[in-house]
Amino acid sequence: MKPKAIFYHAGCPVCRSAESAVVGGLDRSRFDVEIVHLGSEKTRVAEAEKLGVKSVPALVLEGGVFHINFGASLADLK
Amino acid sequence: MKPKAIFYHAGCPVCRSAESAVVGGLDRSRFDVEIVHLGSEKTRVAEAEKLGVKSVPALVLEGGVFHINFGASLADLK
Repeated sequence: MKPKAIFYHAGCPVCRSAESAVVGGLDRSRFDVEIVHLGSEKTRVAEAEKLGVKSVPALVLEGGVFHINFGASLADLK
Repeated sequence: MKPKAIFYHAGCPVCRSAESAVVGGLDRSRFDVEIVHLGSEKTRVAEAEKLGVKSVPALVLEGGVFHINFGASLADLK
């Protein structure tokens, strides 16, 4: 089974740009990539928070949380 | 020729973690990845600044600048 890469976003322009370039640039043969829109899937905000996500867009990969630029804070998505 | 992905960093722990996970996760068959240590290559700070890099670690990819978490501001590397 491939390790998971989860990209949390909120549909913002900063999020879309990061999704296209950074997530789009990942080697899909090595990762199982999941894209989560926290605006539409509000029930997953708590999950993201537990993982250490403070703002979106953020990529959770290999146990690390990588905030990519700044679109919106997680607190504003609750 | 493959498009270029440039990762600017300063050797900090935040930088190393982003390099390992995010840069390490890029599909090398699609990008020509260059890693630039701005602490050792101070002459390239101006180049990074011109591209829009404000802090390290940052990944310049597909014309966009993606600041990944925060290690150090570019101003502190001059």
